[in-house]
Amino acid sequence: MKWTKRQRQPKLKEKIAEDPFITDEALAGIFAVSVQTIRLDRLELNIPEVRERIKSVAQKQYDPVKALAEEEVIGDIVDLELDKYAISVFDVHQDHVFSRNNIIRGHHLFAQANSLAVAVINDELALTANAEVSFRKQVSSGDRVIAKAKVKSIGAARTIVHVQSFVDQTIVFEGTFSMFRDEKDNEEREEHK
Amino acid sequence: MKWTKRQRQPKLKEKIAEDPFITDEALAGIFAVSVQTIRLDRLELNIPEVRERIKSVAQKQYDPVKALAEEEVIGDIVDLELDKYAISVFDVHQDHVFSRNNIIRGHHLFAQANSLAVAVINDELALTANAEVSFRKQVSSGDRVIAKAKVKSIGAARTIVHVQSFVDQTIVFEGTFSMFRDEKDNEEREEHK
Repeated sequence: MKWTKRQRQPKLKEKIAEDPFITDEALAGIFAVSVQTIRLDRLELNIPEVRERIKSVAQKQYDPVKALAEEEVIGDIVDLELDKYAISVFDVHQDHVFSRNNIIRGHHLFAQANSLAVAVINDELALTANAEVSFRKQVSSGDRVIAKAKVKSIGAARTIVHVQSFVDQTIVFEGTFSMFRDEKDNEEREEHK
Repeated sequence: MKWTKRQRQPKLKEKIAEDPFITDEALAGIFAVSVQTIRLDRLELNIPEVRERIKSVAQKQYDPVKALAEEEVIGDIVDLELDKYAISVFDVHQDHVFSRNNIIRGHHLFAQANSLAVAVINDELALTANAEVSFRKQVSSGDRVIAKAKVKSIGAARTIVHVQSFVDQTIVFEGTFSMFRDEKDNEEREEHK
Protein backbone atom coordinates (compact mmCIF):
# COMPACT_ATOMS: atom_id res chain seq x y z
CA MET A 1 0.00 0.00 0.00
CA LYS A 2 1.30 3.43 -0.92
CA TRP A 3 0.48 6.36 1.34
CA THR A 4 -0.07 9.95 0.25
CA LYS A 5 2.42 12.51 1.48
CA ARG A 6 -0.04 13.68 4.16
CA GLN A 7 -0.42 10.13 5.44
CA ARG A 8 3.27 9.30 5.17
CA GLN A 9 4.86 12.30 6.85
CA PRO A 10 3.49 11.79 10.41
CA LYS A 11 4.40 8.10 10.22
CA LEU A 12 7.87 9.02 9.01
CA LYS A 13 8.30 11.39 11.97
CA GLU A 14 7.20 8.63 14.34
CA LYS A 15 9.57 6.10 12.81
CA ILE A 16 12.56 8.44 13.18
CA ALA A 17 11.61 9.25 16.78
CA GLU A 18 11.56 5.50 17.52
CA ASP A 19 14.90 4.89 15.83
CA PRO A 20 16.99 8.03 15.34
CA PHE A 21 19.71 5.96 13.62
CA ILE A 22 17.52 4.80 10.73
CA THR A 23 18.86 5.76 7.30
CA ASP A 24 17.00 7.42 4.44
CA GLU A 25 17.57 4.24 2.42
CA ALA A 26 15.80 2.14 5.07
CA LEU A 27 12.95 4.64 5.34
CA ALA A 28 12.55 4.62 1.56
CA GLY A 29 12.25 0.83 1.76
CA ILE A 30 9.66 0.95 4.54
CA PHE A 31 7.46 3.55 2.83
CA ALA A 32 8.04 2.20 -0.69
CA VAL A 33 9.14 5.58 -2.01
CA SER A 34 12.44 6.87 -3.39
CA VAL A 35 15.28 8.11 -1.17
CA GLN A 36 14.77 11.52 -2.78
CA THR A 37 11.15 11.57 -1.52
CA ILE A 38 12.32 10.79 2.03
CA ARG A 39 14.87 13.64 1.79
CA LEU A 40 12.14 16.07 0.69
CA ASP A 41 9.87 14.81 3.49
CA ARG A 42 12.64 15.42 6.04
CA LEU A 43 13.26 18.91 4.66
CA GLU A 44 9.58 19.75 4.93
CA LEU A 45 9.38 18.27 8.44
CA ASN A 46 12.66 19.95 9.40
CA ILE A 47 14.25 16.62 10.50
CA PRO A 48 18.04 16.58 10.15
CA GLU A 49 19.79 13.77 8.27
CA VAL A 50 20.81 10.64 10.14
CA ARG A 51 24.43 11.74 10.67
CA GLU A 52 23.28 14.92 12.39
CA ARG A 53 20.71 12.98 14.42
CA ILE A 54 23.43 10.61 15.67
CA LYS A 55 25.66 13.52 16.57
CA SER A 56 22.90 15.17 18.58
CA VAL A 57 22.31 11.91 20.48
CA ALA A 58 26.06 11.57 21.00
CA GLN A 59 26.30 15.07 22.47
CA LYS A 60 23.91 14.13 25.25
CA GLN A 61 25.50 13.17 28.53
CA TYR A 62 26.51 9.57 29.09
CA ASP A 63 28.85 7.85 31.53
CA PRO A 64 32.55 8.10 30.72
CA VAL A 65 34.23 4.86 29.62
CA LYS A 66 36.48 3.39 32.34
CA ALA A 67 37.98 0.08 31.21
CA LEU A 68 39.71 1.39 28.09
CA ALA A 69 40.48 4.68 26.35
CA GLU A 70 37.31 5.83 24.57
CA GLU A 71 39.18 6.13 21.26
CA GLU A 72 40.00 2.42 21.59
CA VAL A 73 36.32 1.55 21.20
CA ILE A 74 35.58 0.33 17.64
CA GLY A 75 32.69 2.50 16.47
CA ASP A 76 31.30 5.63 18.14
CA ILE A 77 29.65 5.29 21.53
CA VAL A 78 26.33 7.11 21.53
CA ASP A 79 24.99 6.00 24.89
CA LEU A 80 26.43 4.34 27.96
CA GLU A 81 25.41 3.58 31.51
CA LEU A 82 28.26 1.72 33.25
CA ASP A 83 27.47 -1.85 34.28
CA LYS A 84 24.05 -1.50 32.58
CA TYR A 85 24.10 -0.92 28.82
CA ALA A 86 25.95 0.76 25.96
CA ILE A 87 25.25 1.58 22.32
CA SER A 88 27.72 2.23 19.52
CA VAL A 89 27.49 3.05 15.83
CA PHE A 90 29.94 1.67 13.27
CA ASP A 91 29.92 2.67 9.60
CA VAL A 92 31.14 -0.10 7.31
CA HIS A 93 33.60 1.10 4.67
CA GLN A 94 35.34 -0.54 1.76
CA ASP A 95 38.35 -1.50 3.87
CA HIS A 96 36.18 -3.55 6.27
CA VAL A 97 34.86 -5.95 3.62
CA PHE A 98 36.20 -8.88 1.65
CA SER A 99 37.41 -7.57 -1.69
CA ARG A 100 35.64 -10.21 -3.73
CA ASN A 101 32.10 -10.15 -2.34
CA ASN A 102 31.78 -6.83 -0.44
CA ILE A 103 30.72 -8.75 2.72
CA ILE A 104 32.09 -7.46 6.02
CA ARG A 105 34.96 -9.43 7.57
CA GLY A 106 33.62 -11.04 10.74
CA HIS A 107 36.27 -9.69 13.05
CA HIS A 108 35.07 -6.12 12.57
CA LEU A 109 31.61 -7.01 13.93
CA PHE A 110 33.34 -8.95 16.69
CA ALA A 111 35.60 -5.95 17.43
CA GLN A 112 32.70 -3.51 17.66
CA ALA A 113 30.75 -5.81 20.01
CA ASN A 114 33.76 -6.88 22.07
CA SER A 115 35.07 -3.36 22.62
CA LEU A 116 31.56 -2.28 23.62
CA ALA A 117 31.42 -5.18 26.10
CA VAL A 118 34.70 -3.89 27.57
CA ALA A 119 33.50 -0.27 27.57
CA VAL A 120 30.31 -1.04 29.52
CA ILE A 121 32.27 -2.47 32.47
CA ASN A 122 32.56 -0.15 35.48
CA ASP A 123 36.16 -1.05 36.26
CA GLU A 124 39.64 0.09 35.33
CA LEU A 125 40.45 -3.39 34.04
CA ALA A 126 38.17 -5.57 31.95
CA LEU A 127 39.33 -8.47 29.78
CA THR A 128 37.36 -10.93 27.71
CA ALA A 129 37.53 -14.50 29.06
CA ASN A 130 35.35 -16.12 26.43
CA ALA A 131 32.68 -15.37 23.89
CA GLU A 132 29.98 -17.10 21.89
CA VAL A 133 29.09 -15.19 18.76
CA SER A 134 26.78 -15.67 15.77
CA PHE A 135 26.96 -13.89 12.48
CA ARG A 136 23.29 -13.75 11.59
CA LYS A 137 23.12 -11.79 8.38
CA GLN A 138 25.59 -10.47 5.83
CA VAL A 139 26.68 -6.86 6.30
CA SER A 140 28.07 -4.85 3.39
CA SER A 141 30.07 -1.73 2.76
CA GLY A 142 27.84 1.32 3.31
CA ASP A 143 25.83 -0.31 6.10
CA ARG A 144 25.58 1.35 9.49
CA VAL A 145 25.81 -1.16 12.35
CA ILE A 146 24.22 -0.26 15.70
CA ALA A 147 25.52 -2.46 18.54
CA LYS A 148 23.60 -2.65 21.80
CA ALA A 149 25.32 -4.15 24.82
CA LYS A 150 23.42 -5.18 27.96
CA VAL A 151 25.02 -6.35 31.19
CA LYS A 152 23.18 -9.55 32.09
CA SER A 153 24.85 -10.46 35.38
CA ILE A 154 27.77 -9.39 37.54
CA GLY A 155 29.25 -12.39 39.33
CA ALA A 156 32.30 -12.68 41.57
CA ALA A 157 34.40 -14.16 38.78
CA ARG A 158 32.73 -12.98 35.58
CA THR A 159 30.45 -10.31 34.19
CA ILE A 160 28.18 -11.47 31.37
CA VAL A 161 27.49 -8.97 28.61
CA HIS A 162 25.05 -9.66 25.79
CA VAL A 163 25.52 -7.70 22.57
CA GLN A 164 23.15 -7.51 19.61
CA SER A 165 24.08 -5.60 16.46
CA PHE A 166 21.58 -4.32 13.93
CA VAL A 167 21.50 -2.88 10.44
CA ASP A 168 18.22 -1.08 9.77
CA GLN A 169 16.62 -2.85 12.74
CA THR A 170 17.53 -6.30 11.43
CA ILE A 171 19.81 -8.28 13.71
CA VAL A 172 23.12 -9.07 11.99
CA PHE A 173 25.32 -10.20 14.88
CA GLU A 174 24.78 -11.51 18.38
CA GLY A 175 27.30 -12.35 21.06
CA THR A 176 27.60 -13.26 24.72
CA PHE A 177 30.84 -12.08 26.27
CA SER A 178 32.10 -13.39 29.57
CA MET A 179 34.26 -10.63 31.01
CA PHE A 180 36.91 -10.76 33.67
CA ARG A 181 37.26 -7.59 35.70
CA ASP A 182 39.87 -6.29 38.11
CA GLU A 183 39.47 -8.39 41.27
CA LYS A 184 41.12 -5.89 43.58
CA ASP A 185 38.56 -3.37 42.49
CA ASN A 186 35.75 -5.85 43.13
CA GLU A 187 37.03 -6.54 46.62
CA GLU A 188 37.07 -2.83 47.31
CA ARG A 189 33.49 -2.62 46.16
CA GLU A 190 32.57 -5.50 48.43
CA GLU A 191 34.19 -3.66 51.35
CA HIS A 192 32.24 -0.53 50.61
CA LYS A 193 28.90 -2.29 50.53
CA MET B 1 69.80 -28.40 36.28
CA LYS B 2 72.23 -26.54 34.10
CA TRP B 3 73.76 -28.30 31.12
CA THR B 4 77.25 -27.76 29.74
CA LYS B 5 77.49 -26.32 26.27
CA ARG B 6 78.21 -29.77 24.82
CA GLN B 7 75.12 -31.19 26.47
CA ARG B 8 72.96 -28.20 25.62
CA GLN B 9 73.69 -27.72 21.94
CA PRO B 10 72.29 -31.03 20.60
CA LYS B 11 69.15 -30.52 22.72
CA LEU B 12 68.82 -26.99 21.41
CA LYS B 13 69.06 -28.24 17.84
CA GLU B 14 66.37 -30.83 18.56
CA LYS B 15 64.07 -28.26 20.17
CA ILE B 16 64.32 -25.94 17.15
CA ALA B 17 63.70 -28.84 14.77
CA GLU B 18 60.53 -29.67 16.72
CA ASP B 19 59.30 -26.06 16.77
CA PRO B 20 60.97 -23.83 14.18
CA PHE B 21 58.95 -20.85 15.46
CA ILE B 22 60.43 -20.88 18.95
CA THR B 23 62.15 -17.61 19.91
CA ASP B 24 65.59 -17.14 21.48
CA GLU B 25 63.85 -15.77 24.57
CA ALA B 26 61.81 -18.96 24.97
CA LEU B 27 64.89 -21.13 24.41
CA ALA B 28 66.81 -19.12 27.00
CA GLY B 29 63.99 -19.83 29.46
CA ILE B 30 63.97 -23.56 28.69
CA PHE B 31 67.73 -24.00 29.05
CA ALA B 32 68.09 -21.50 31.90
CA VAL B 33 70.76 -19.52 30.09
CA SER B 34 70.88 -15.96 28.74
CA VAL B 35 69.49 -14.99 25.34
CA GLN B 36 73.05 -14.08 24.39
CA THR B 37 74.16 -17.67 25.09
CA ILE B 38 71.40 -19.02 22.82
CA ARG B 39 72.51 -16.64 20.06
CA LEU B 40 76.09 -17.86 20.37
CA ASP B 41 74.87 -21.48 20.34
CA ARG B 42 72.89 -20.81 17.16
CA LEU B 43 75.90 -19.16 15.54
CA GLU B 44 78.11 -22.15 16.37
CA LEU B 45 75.42 -24.58 15.19
CA ASN B 46 74.76 -22.47 12.10
CA ILE B 47 71.01 -22.21 12.86
CA PRO B 48 69.40 -19.00 11.51
CA GLU B 49 67.34 -16.74 13.76
CA VAL B 50 63.62 -17.39 14.17
CA ARG B 51 62.55 -14.80 11.59
CA GLU B 52 64.73 -16.44 8.94
CA ARG B 53 63.49 -19.89 9.98
CA ILE B 54 59.88 -18.78 9.56
CA LYS B 55 60.67 -17.32 6.14
CA SER B 56 62.26 -20.56 5.01
CA VAL B 57 59.19 -22.52 6.17
CA ALA B 58 56.98 -19.98 4.42
CA GLN B 59 58.88 -20.41 1.16
CA LYS B 60 58.05 -24.08 1.07
CA GLN B 61 55.10 -25.06 -1.06
CA TYR B 62 51.67 -24.97 0.49
CA ASP B 63 48.17 -24.88 -0.97
CA PRO B 64 47.03 -21.50 -2.29
CA VAL B 65 44.29 -19.80 -0.27
CA LYS B 66 40.92 -19.93 -2.04
CA ALA B 67 38.20 -18.34 0.09
CA LEU B 68 39.82 -14.91 0.42
CA ALA B 69 42.76 -12.93 -0.93
CA GLU B 70 45.89 -14.14 0.88
CA GLU B 71 46.78 -10.57 1.91
CA GLU B 72 43.42 -10.47 3.72
CA VAL B 73 44.60 -13.11 6.17
CA ILE B 74 45.61 -11.53 9.49
CA GLY B 75 49.14 -12.82 10.16
CA ASP B 76 51.40 -14.68 7.73
CA ILE B 77 50.37 -18.12 6.55
CA VAL B 78 53.30 -20.53 6.87
CA ASP B 79 51.54 -23.79 6.09
CA LEU B 80 48.21 -24.77 4.58
CA GLU B 81 46.51 -27.86 3.30
CA LEU B 82 43.01 -26.96 2.11
CA ASP B 83 40.17 -28.52 4.12
CA LYS B 84 42.77 -30.03 6.49
CA TYR B 85 44.89 -27.56 8.45
CA ALA B 86 46.62 -24.17 8.34
CA ILE B 87 49.21 -22.33 10.41
CA SER B 88 49.82 -18.60 10.64
CA VAL B 89 52.22 -16.35 12.54
CA PHE B 90 51.20 -12.97 13.93
CA ASP B 91 53.63 -10.56 15.60
CA VAL B 92 51.97 -8.40 18.24
CA HIS B 93 52.94 -4.73 18.04
CA GLN B 94 52.20 -1.68 20.14
CA ASP B 95 49.13 -0.79 18.08
CA HIS B 96 47.47 -4.16 18.84
CA VAL B 97 47.44 -3.69 22.62
CA PHE B 98 45.46 -1.65 25.12
CA SER B 99 47.42 1.53 25.83
CA ARG B 100 47.14 1.24 29.59
CA ASN B 101 48.19 -2.36 30.26
CA ASN B 102 50.01 -3.55 27.11
CA ILE B 103 47.59 -6.53 26.82
CA ILE B 104 46.46 -7.47 23.31
CA ARG B 105 42.96 -6.42 22.31
CA GLY B 106 40.91 -9.60 21.97
CA HIS B 107 39.70 -8.92 18.47
CA HIS B 108 43.20 -9.24 17.02
CA LEU B 109 43.50 -12.83 18.28
CA PHE B 110 39.97 -13.43 17.01
CA ALA B 111 40.89 -11.92 13.62
CA GLN B 112 43.99 -14.09 13.24
CA ALA B 113 42.07 -17.26 14.10
CA ASN B 114 38.94 -16.36 12.15
CA SER B 115 40.79 -15.41 8.98
CA LEU B 116 42.78 -18.65 9.23
CA ALA B 117 39.49 -20.58 9.58
CA VAL B 118 38.32 -18.88 6.38
CA ALA B 119 41.63 -19.49 4.61
CA VAL B 120 41.63 -23.23 5.29
CA ILE B 121 38.31 -23.74 3.48
CA ASN B 122 38.58 -25.24 0.01
CA ASP B 123 35.89 -23.05 -1.54
CA GLU B 124 35.58 -19.69 -3.23
CA LEU B 125 33.13 -18.53 -0.58
CA ALA B 126 33.47 -19.15 3.15
CA LEU B 127 31.69 -17.13 5.82
CA THR B 128 31.65 -17.53 9.58
CA ALA B 129 28.24 -18.58 10.91
CA ASN B 130 29.17 -18.71 14.58
CA ALA B 131 32.12 -19.07 16.88
CA GLU B 132 32.93 -20.01 20.45
CA VAL B 133 36.22 -18.55 21.61
CA SER B 134 38.25 -18.45 24.83
CA PHE B 135 41.02 -16.06 25.67
CA ARG B 136 43.20 -18.31 27.80
CA LYS B 137 46.23 -16.22 28.65
CA GLN B 138 47.25 -12.59 28.27
CA VAL B 139 49.29 -11.75 25.20
CA SER B 140 51.51 -8.66 25.11
CA SER B 141 53.27 -6.46 22.61
CA GLY B 142 56.40 -8.26 21.34
CA ASP B 143 54.80 -11.72 21.53
CA ARG B 144 54.65 -13.94 18.45
CA VAL B 145 51.35 -15.79 18.15
CA ILE B 146 51.26 -19.06 16.19
CA ALA B 147 47.71 -20.05 15.24
CA LYS B 148 46.97 -23.63 14.17
CA ALA B 149 43.65 -24.35 12.46
CA LYS B 150 42.33 -27.89 12.00
CA VAL B 151 39.25 -28.82 10.00
CA LYS B 152 37.24 -31.08 12.32
CA SER B 153 34.29 -31.94 10.09
CA ILE B 154 32.80 -31.00 6.75
CA GLY B 155 29.01 -31.26 6.86
CA ALA B 156 26.39 -30.38 4.29
CA ALA B 157 25.54 -27.14 6.04
CA ARG B 158 28.65 -26.25 8.03
CA THR B 159 32.37 -26.90 8.22
CA ILE B 160 33.79 -26.95 11.75
CA VAL B 161 37.28 -25.50 12.19
CA HIS B 162 39.13 -25.64 15.49
CA VAL B 163 41.88 -23.06 16.06
CA GLN B 164 44.44 -22.99 18.85
CA SER B 165 46.89 -20.10 19.18
CA PHE B 166 50.15 -20.31 21.08
CA VAL B 167 52.87 -18.02 22.38
CA ASP B 168 56.07 -19.97 23.14
CA GLN B 169 54.10 -23.23 23.12
CA THR B 170 51.63 -21.98 25.74
CA ILE B 171 48.04 -21.86 24.55
CA VAL B 172 46.68 -18.29 24.63
CA PHE B 173 43.50 -18.54 22.55
CA GLU B 174 41.18 -21.30 21.43
CA GLY B 175 38.18 -21.14 19.16
CA THR B 176 35.70 -23.32 17.32
CA PHE B 177 34.41 -21.72 14.13
CA SER B 178 31.35 -22.96 12.33
CA MET B 179 31.83 -21.98 8.71
CA PHE B 180 29.30 -21.64 5.94
CA ARG B 181 30.64 -22.42 2.49
CA ASP B 182 29.31 -21.87 -1.01
CA GLU B 183 26.48 -24.38 -1.45
CA LYS B 184 26.57 -24.35 -5.22
CA ASP B 185 30.18 -25.38 -5.04
CA ASN B 186 29.31 -28.17 -2.60
CA GLU B 187 26.65 -29.48 -4.92
CA GLU B 188 29.14 -29.52 -7.74
CA ARG B 189 31.50 -31.48 -5.60
CA GLU B 190 28.76 -33.93 -4.78
CA GLU B 191 28.09 -34.42 -8.47
CA HIS B 192 31.73 -35.13 -9.15
CA LYS B 193 32.04 -37.77 -6.48
